[in-house]
Amino acid sequence: MLMAVRKPLFTPWGVEGEIDYDRIIKEFGLEIISDELLSKLSKLAKGLHPLLERKVFFTHRDLPWLLSKIASGEKFFLYTGRGPSEKTHLGHLIPWIVTKWFQEKFKAPLIFQFTDDEKFLFKQDLSLDKVKSLALDNALDVIALGFDEKLTFFLFDTMHADLLYPQALRIAKKVTFNTVKAVFGLNQSSNIGQIFFTSMQAVPAFLPSVILGKNIPCLIPMGLDQDPHFRIARDVLPRLGFYKPACMHSRMLKGLTGSAKMSASKSPNDVLFLDDSLQVAERKIKNAFTGGRETAAVQRSKGGRPEICSIFNYFQYFFASDEELSIIESECRKGLRLCGDCKKQLIEKVLKFLEQHQKAKERAREKLERFFFSSECLRKVLS
Amino acid sequence: MLMAVRKPLFTPWGVEGEIDYDRIIKEFGLEIISDELLSKLSKLAKGLHPLLERKVFFTHRDLPWLLSKIASGEKFFLYTGRGPSEKTHLGHLIPWIVTKWFQEKFKAPLIFQFTDDEKFLFKQDLSLDKVKSLALDNALDVIALGFDEKLTFFLFDTMHADLLYPQALRIAKKVTFNTVKAVFGLNQSSNIGQIFFTSMQAVPAFLPSVILGKNIPCLIPMGLDQDPHFRIARDVLPRLGFYKPACMHSRMLKGLTGSAKMSASKSPNDVLFLDDSLQVAERKIKNAFTGGRETAAVQRSKGGRPEICSIFNYFQYFFASDEELSIIESECRKGLRLCGDCKKQLIEKVLKFLEQHQKAKERAREKLERFFFSSECLRKVLS
Repeated sequence: MLMAVRKPLFTPWGVEGEIDYDRIIKEFGLEIISDELLSKLSKLAKGLHPLLERKVFFTHRDLPWLLSKIASGEKFFLYTGRGPSEKTHLGHLIPWIVTKWFQEKFKAPLIFQFTDDEKFLFKQDLSLDKVKSLALDNALDVIALGFDEKLTFFLFDTMHADLLYPQALRIAKKVTFNTVKAVFGLNQSSNIGQIFFTSMQAVPAFLPSVILGKNIPCLIPMGLDQDPHFRIARDVLPRLGFYKPACMHSRMLKGLTGSAKMSASKSPNDVLFLDDSLQVAERKIKNAFTGGRETAAVQRSKGGRPEICSIFNYFQYFFASDEELSIIESECRKGLRLCGDCKKQLIEKVLKFLEQHQKAKERAREKLERFFFSSECLRKVLS
Repeated sequence: MLMAVRKPLFTPWGVEGEIDYDRIIKEFGLEIISDELLSKLSKLAKGLHPLLERKVFFTHRDLPWLLSKIASGEKFFLYTGRGPSEKTHLGHLIPWIVTKWFQEKFKAPLIFQFTDDEKFLFKQDLSLDKVKSLALDNALDVIALGFDEKLTFFLFDTMHADLLYPQALRIAKKVTFNTVKAVFGLNQSSNIGQIFFTSMQAVPAFLPSVILGKNIPCLIPMGLDQDPHFRIARDVLPRLGFYKPACMHSRMLKGLTGSAKMSASKSPNDVLFLDDSLQVAERKIKNAFTGGRETAAVQRSKGGRPEICSIFNYFQYFFASDEELSIIESECRKGLRLCGDCKKQLIEKVLKFLEQHQKAKERAREKLERFFFSSECLRKVLS
């Protein structure tokens, strides 16, 4: 049975207000990633990525099943993606970084889907040409992060529709309007492409099983807002004879202006784009919302609040070792460091990262085609 | 504005009860094909096909506009298709025959779409493999009818999704659930593929304009039941900067068992399949519903009723010259010929046709690939 959210406030196309993670866990029917589970993963991977250790990835579906498959030596594949409605920003990287970690640790192939169709359908003013060019640009960011070109397979929904659309029909045949209404909050005025779209997002979760002619386990690291798609996919896939994909969900990165989920559609100042010039990135961080107090004096006496601080969030997710993070947090709470200190420290790290990334992105251009999906190559690495 | 039928009784997926053509004309907002319009066409084509002369094609949208384009020497293209849910039967041929006539008279290219996706989505028990193989089989029937291989372009929705799906998104973005509910009678329990599908059927009407980079007029000869798709397409296309396609609609062929629209899903005896063995075809015709009377004696005195006779319908649509048809009708009404006479005469003609067709279909197999859609070839013939 599908867990339908009565009044979806948290869907791939909208996060309203503060995120109540406890309520979402309950309504979506998610499992918490326990320390025990992390320790099992750690044994298999010989270590843990900070985003896992720090519980930025905090919930899952069927992760124990996936780990048991890995433990038994069975091959599996990874699946994640990107809805190319804008330039890539740092918030987008969270699932990608963990996906890359899994790829490196287990030599697992990855299907990376660019849902240009989705963004065309959901953004009134986005043209098909524009969304395609954004998809190709975003793809360069993925390559620049250093994914393995022999193990990474890009699917662009419009370009690879000959592969995806026939399989999407199999999903679509088993999903009614009532379901997408309940799960996504779509309604009678939604366009018929929006209503169909979730079928396309389901396909990479079983496409390798179709191509190989046997069931291959799948792990999908994703932002929590993408879970509704996979609630539907996990309901339908067993009825087509496929495994349910295992899922892992990350918390959302706080926006620099203080929003619950970083989003460029609210304000370009809410996010750090990977293409931001160093000057612009520096300015955004300098103006960021923090957990600081009204005055330096109050802060020195009461201490800051890292739990609501967007700057601290960046350290947690990307830019601090365990040791650094612990120093930052403790100094902040004790009022020993002010927001300016943190901002300066973050600016240094972000600028270094952006500089490296932008150089790597330039070099990515010539590699792009090597990352395009190939059934033949996928078959080879999964056989 | 869309002309929404409040309670659609006549859609691509269901014809209920007797067909009230007058009501449909009014509700769909169709124009009658007048004698004046036929005479304009006759001048341009130097003749008329019997299916036009006999008003089997009886309604249109924007046909005068299309004829004025032809008269001014502008190139246009034809578009028709087939939903491959079963083997081809004679009822399917009506639009194809007239389409072929237009192709011959005006050397116009034709896009022939096989909507295997549609039939997969609407037929519970039809698998993707089965519907694909039916599409390829139906395609051989199209070839066997003698379409010009240099001017005929087959599109199979699942095989050509890379071409069709991105364009379908442009339609889908402008059509809501409310519209497909009103036009097709789809509802909240409809699957999300059915809801999306009409977008795919719209694409061939403007794909050549996309490929050529300029507007090319389109004429769609179709069975009347397909009109709802093109009511939607004609509403959306001008908003994307394309011409509305011109449409021509044929009446439905009566079923051999007396149903208003020949349909194999009601009974295989209702239709003559192009693959029927000569024995089977003969048996079906012998058992057909006619306009005959209770006894031969009554018929001799009162005469028969060709207007309700499925056998007479076959003569009208396919198997009688004007002279023959006039003799058959007059002799029938006067009670000078009995149903057995007509059946014998029809059997002779049908068997000859089937024999020829089945031989031509055997030879069609090797030509199949030459009919597959090619943007390059289409560009050539339309430039």
